[in-house]
Amino acid sequence: MDQSPPHPETQHQSVTFAEGLTLDCGRHLASLTVAYRTYGTLNAARNNAILICHALTGDQYVAEPNPETGKPGWWDNLVGPGKPVDTENFFVICTNVLGGCMGTTGPRSPHEDHPERPWGTDFPPVTINDMVRAQKLFIGHLGIEKLFAVIGGSMGGMQTLAWAALYPQHVFAAIPVAAAYYHSAQNIAFHEIGRQAIAADPDFHGGQYWEHGVIPARGLAVARMTAHITYVSEEALSRKFGRKLQEAEGLSSLGERFEVESYLQYQGSSFVRRFDANSYLTITRAMDLFDLAAEHGGLLANAFKGTKTRFLLVSFSSDWLFPTAQSRAIARALNHVAANVSFVEIKSDKGHDAFLLDEPDFHRTLRGFLSGCAEHAGLK
Amino acid sequence: MDQSPPHPETQHQSVTFAEGLTLDCGRHLASLTVAYRTYGTLNAARNNAILICHALTGDQYVAEPNPETGKPGWWDNLVGPGKPVDTENFFVICTNVLGGCMGTTGPRSPHEDHPERPWGTDFPPVTINDMVRAQKLFIGHLGIEKLFAVIGGSMGGMQTLAWAALYPQHVFAAIPVAAAYYHSAQNIAFHEIGRQAIAADPDFHGGQYWEHGVIPARGLAVARMTAHITYVSEEALSRKFGRKLQEAEGLSSLGERFEVESYLQYQGSSFVRRFDANSYLTITRAMDLFDLAAEHGGLLANAFKGTKTRFLLVSFSSDWLFPTAQSRAIARALNHVAANVSFVEIKSDKGHDAFLLDEPDFHRTLRGFLSGCAEHAGLK
Repeated sequence: MDQSPPHPETQHQSVTFAEGLTLDCGRHLASLTVAYRTYGTLNAARNNAILICHALTGDQYVAEPNPETGKPGWWDNLVGPGKPVDTENFFVICTNVLGGCMGTTGPRSPHEDHPERPWGTDFPPVTINDMVRAQKLFIGHLGIEKLFAVIGGSMGGMQTLAWAALYPQHVFAAIPVAAAYYHSAQNIAFHEIGRQAIAADPDFHGGQYWEHGVIPARGLAVARMTAHITYVSEEALSRKFGRKLQEAEGLSSLGERFEVESYLQYQGSSFVRRFDANSYLTITRAMDLFDLAAEHGGLLANAFKGTKTRFLLVSFSSDWLFPTAQSRAIARALNHVAANVSFVEIKSDKGHDAFLLDEPDFHRTLRGFLSGCAEHAGLK
Repeated sequence: MDQSPPHPETQHQSVTFAEGLTLDCGRHLASLTVAYRTYGTLNAARNNAILICHALTGDQYVAEPNPETGKPGWWDNLVGPGKPVDTENFFVICTNVLGGCMGTTGPRSPHEDHPERPWGTDFPPVTINDMVRAQKLFIGHLGIEKLFAVIGGSMGGMQTLAWAALYPQHVFAAIPVAAAYYHSAQNIAFHEIGRQAIAADPDFHGGQYWEHGVIPARGLAVARMTAHITYVSEEALSRKFGRKLQEAEGLSSLGERFEVESYLQYQGSSFVRRFDANSYLTITRAMDLFDLAAEHGGLLANAFKGTKTRFLLVSFSSDWLFPTAQSRAIARALNHVAANVSFVEIKSDKGHDAFLLDEPDFHRTLRGFLSGCAEHAGLK
């Protein structure tokens, strides 16, 4: 496994806010850098902006090749000219989340008191709300008062919900996809496996791996592998790998591998080259802490009282990580406050990852909803 | 975490077979030791014996305190005088599985060519069928021609199915509980996480950890934690831990822990003190290789053609590891060959682990089935 520190020199487009950001934990970041990408053109009225929020291991490279992996943008099938999120009509923005490792302030950034080294595990804990506040600062910097839409899947869906709760006046439409309004005990447990695996890797060095010129690649790979299983359905895993033996050599040795194993090993090892372990710890913790109901006296509906935002909730039938029941509970809370809400469960056997894949029903639904909202917003 | 090698000196009751055992992989073990415990009395006709097959991390201490942990036997609630598996009527046998680490030949046993050191990762791969063949040898040693019943949960259920398929003439009744006739891609993937975590632990030393006076405790703990999540339902995990913070100190640091996390850490660390990492690798691999349909030309029914064995299949409604659909498929195959089969899905929200817990419906069902079979077998 490649042990070299992953491309710390890549330059990302970014803006630095000298005023910094005060976090939910009470700490104040003296300075905040937000890395971002935009697609399409902001209209004169500045009311055609769509913010896309990325998931745990996503980044700002939504609809163009990722400079670090060379792979297509992670929502390239959804965002672009003529695509469901049409960059010929909309100005699409995506920022790397606070705590991330693709240019926005996070554990890999210089420590504010010791700029000669990264924050590492000294980076303060952040919340989904903190991520959204950083995005709000950035939107203001672009001169945008109100977003036409916020869209996000998985943790991006959590941010979308947080936007609608924190800044209802600034979000015309909100589209949480494969989302959850709190992280369940099982969700937390799977994250904890990953964090334990990272902490158990001797190359982690208590989070100060850069001092040793290594990365905790094995632990991070185990973390990624664990997460990956939760992203796919049993059906998808079976279809892709079934019980085929990679080498049909019979029971010759313990080295014999089921295909699913080598796949997971590959997934794990390509991941460690692009993602910072301390960011993984910081962001998984932010997800674990998310509980929009608890923030509002235990009643989710309170988060959306009086909202004028139009909601589209999308879930996928085989998603067992953020199951349909989660989206349904959000729809119920929104109905409770008489919000404008559409809720669609997409039939898919691809699991949580379906939100990233070519799911024609999802894409059609999203295109239609955006088009309807654009009319209501006077955009056409 | 305790790094000392776990009690290698414990003596277990055992029998050694000088003829050894030929394995599915083609290797011949020159000598085979089977460690065991029995409860109750074998009757004069030698037809009241019940073999209990243990699960992945179980052992032969079914109904008495475990000498290594001091905890009650793992099926103490089910097996004993007056209990559903009544040791006043039945002679109950349990052997440590081949490949295990509680006295039966396995990776911790002396290497047959280098007796000065353990087999370690040189131990040949074993199958569920190999485990059953070792048990068959042991049953013969006790002078038992036909078992009244074979009972097992989880991997024990796999062994129970293998007994019925390999030795139909020698099993009057078979009771696979929370069982599966093959290990799914998702099952294999979760095992692979555990194996990767063990292999990634620097204290693993390529499987020769004893040479360094250490055990791969951190990797084994991550493996156990991963497995543990699959043993419980989301409901059970939520009920027990919910999202309560162990220390209600707010967002002060990343060290803050959800209760589920410290629970998993405890589970992981108590486990490493009693279980050998190489046994974990060997036994998980045996489970992954299990596919009773593939062994019989792709048709599960072929495994049971002409069987006279009476079957009771038990599944638990919230078991997502070996779900009810697995037991239903087995019932269908047995129906296909006109076998005598009862199938009960027990309503429980405790997940796969329910087979170990006090589930009155399960216990009543088992007691009734054994009583009926005892009549048919002329035992009363």
